[in-house]
Amino acid sequence: MALTRSPLAPDHFPKLPQIAGVRFASAEAGVKYKNRTDVMLAVMDPGSTVAGVFTRSATRSAPVLDCQAKLASSDNHTAHGAAILVNSGNSNAFTGHYGQTSVAEITRTVADITGIPAARVFTASTGVIGEPLPHERIVSQIATLNDGLVATAIEDAAEAIMTTDTFAKGAGATIEMGGKTVSIAGIAKGSGMIAPDMATMLVYIFTDAQIAQNDLQALLSQICDRTFNCITVDSDTSTSDSLMLCASGASGIDVTGNTDFALALENVMLDLSHQVVRDGEGATKFVEIQVTGAMNDHDAKVHGLSIANSPLVKTAIAGEDPNWGRVVMAIGKSGAAADRDKLSISFGEVLVAEKGWVSPGYKEADGAAEMAKPEIVIKVDLGLAEGKSTVWTCDLTHQYISINADYRS
Amino acid sequence: MALTRSPLAPDHFPKLPQIAGVRFASAEAGVKYKNRTDVMLAVMDPGSTVAGVFTRSATRSAPVLDCQAKLASSDNHTAHGAAILVNSGNSNAFTGHYGQTSVAEITRTVADITGIPAARVFTASTGVIGEPLPHERIVSQIATLNDGLVATAIEDAAEAIMTTDTFAKGAGATIEMGGKTVSIAGIAKGSGMIAPDMATMLVYIFTDAQIAQNDLQALLSQICDRTFNCITVDSDTSTSDSLMLCASGASGIDVTGNTDFALALENVMLDLSHQVVRDGEGATKFVEIQVTGAMNDHDAKVHGLSIANSPLVKTAIAGEDPNWGRVVMAIGKSGAAADRDKLSISFGEVLVAEKGWVSPGYKEADGAAEMAKPEIVIKVDLGLAEGKSTVWTCDLTHQYISINADYRS
Repeated sequence: MALTRSPLAPDHFPKLPQIAGVRFASAEAGVKYKNRTDVMLAVMDPGSTVAGVFTRSATRSAPVLDCQAKLASSDNHTAHGAAILVNSGNSNAFTGHYGQTSVAEITRTVADITGIPAARVFTASTGVIGEPLPHERIVSQIATLNDGLVATAIEDAAEAIMTTDTFAKGAGATIEMGGKTVSIAGIAKGSGMIAPDMATMLVYIFTDAQIAQNDLQALLSQICDRTFNCITVDSDTSTSDSLMLCASGASGIDVTGNTDFALALENVMLDLSHQVVRDGEGATKFVEIQVTGAMNDHDAKVHGLSIANSPLVKTAIAGEDPNWGRVVMAIGKSGAAADRDKLSISFGEVLVAEKGWVSPGYKEADGAAEMAKPEIVIKVDLGLAEGKSTVWTCDLTHQYISINADYRS
Repeated sequence: MALTRSPLAPDHFPKLPQIAGVRFASAEAGVKYKNRTDVMLAVMDPGSTVAGVFTRSATRSAPVLDCQAKLASSDNHTAHGAAILVNSGNSNAFTGHYGQTSVAEITRTVADITGIPAARVFTASTGVIGEPLPHERIVSQIATLNDGLVATAIEDAAEAIMTTDTFAKGAGATIEMGGKTVSIAGIAKGSGMIAPDMATMLVYIFTDAQIAQNDLQALLSQICDRTFNCITVDSDTSTSDSLMLCASGASGIDVTGNTDFALALENVMLDLSHQVVRDGEGATKFVEIQVTGAMNDHDAKVHGLSIANSPLVKTAIAGEDPNWGRVVMAIGKSGAAADRDKLSISFGEVLVAEKGWVSPGYKEADGAAEMAKPEIVIKVDLGLAEGKSTVWTCDLTHQYISINADYRS
């Protein structure tokens, strides 16, 4: 099935800074797809630190389990560099012991060819669940990948990891620090089976900053909660979600505790997470849900996600219907505290409902005009306390059904 | 929009037993719909007890709040009989103080005309949220309704409360006890905005059994957890869901603690709840999900609902794709305990996956044959302990999107 580019896609892949100490290659292994790249290799120079967050699924994939085990014990291995190998087309999830064998075969081959210890070789697989990964097709490409490694090939890497994605996703930043420059560049894939409360999808972010692994991990986990853990396409959580952040240290600039770096990293992660929503399966609307006035931030996020995951809210948005009653419904069912007579709802700047009732000045035509936009902001103020959260989602359309009723992903 | 009758609908409305002590009437009030009935009145004779369970939504409707308040204080009012008035087309939810005025006007008029105290007049409204209920249209029909009350009109009542329903829903039972007969007859409406963890939709069940209100309420709450609280169409919880059980006592048979009666009542509630799923918006498949081997019954239900509410599982079913990987995904994301290597999954009698892997004997054609059936059973055994639960749902199709992207409900 050929998917047309999402109407919410950016015009083009961004120009990303090159990250000193990191090189990329991609190839056609024919795991499932034909006539396109489906495997990418990223290699980090010695001295690199690596942090990661992964799906919390109880049925997570063999590569995820392998990455988690390695990261838990890898803090003394920075001398050796690191490698990441990712394939698309098959997720190597729920593939029993055979899945672990596949991971072992791939990582051993990458280690042999790159000279990086297997304990520092991380893999990920994305695609259909429950089918054996034909890992020999990947293994046979690793020498070619290694020979082709270049610092400039990050866009090709982003393309190789796509599944139902309709565009390659990238974001970057440069931060000036005392006359020197630190750079960040990241790529992501993801379109369906996207839901929060984890590190969502496959995301790889690289920087030439210098930072210890523990600090890098803490920073990543913290920012993930405000970015990737605040998006949802369809409330379904993948078995393969992985987000890895690699710092080569090649800039020679220590960013430990640096707020400029943290902010730039957060912007990159926010940008990538929004691109995933913009490529949500069948999406025609990008929706930001701002919740304020909740009892606490957690309650605000619960309300936000209840709205974002409601099929009735999402179909109303698809139909450009300012059906704020469904927003009320989603708030009511969320389980978090709400008081009908204190909450207010706006579409963009249009106040729709307040004081347990439609707003006296509200005109349906004003609400409809907001809903006709490709980017929609829904504001909910609970009127209870100071808790707030923002989440992002897309609409639920016929195309989501077409993609998922016919495509085995 | 004209909706075609669900392919999963029963052939015809069942022949229900007449319930002594209960009469029905319906009328065209023109609340929203034209050329169809949209208001029903049920009147119970003096001596009747009434129990109810309602949505737990924090934004529940004015009629729900009114019913809850009355039931909480109504146990001394059985001498006066009771009345239930329901309209379709407008839910009178999130309608502020005006909503309470509407309820008060309707209940006062019913009380005046029927002679039943307002404290024993219960109302419900179903339809669009957030629009003022034109209660005067209903009030003007109450005398006509009262004049038309007959014991035989329960099917007409079931039709009057429909919204996006494509068929009227009814179920009944008769139980022989010591040479006498106790009868149960119930009606329901519901098609979208259907999710568990509450009394779902509008359901009215009548019996001529004799039972005190407290016992009736306990029985209702208990059975509701195994029936209506185990179904889901779209994971969205209505602001108006109400389930009321009325016992006229006219049979003269005390059913307190009687297991035959409890079983018959459970069967009626199960039947009605399944009819709601069979009329799920856009449904083409009726799906039973049997979860066994969980750590406890609660965990089993959490897994079952995670599968039942997964858009990816529901679209796979719509596409007749035996995509058991998505079932694995839904188990993994549920949050309840699971062990990849201990769980097994079957479609009908076809064992699909076991021991963390596709079952050695599984053939895709066998799975596909199961998925081609209109009624599908998904069995999941967690292999951990003895917890079990069964939930019911339907598939997610293009028609759900069509109904909800275009229809303001």
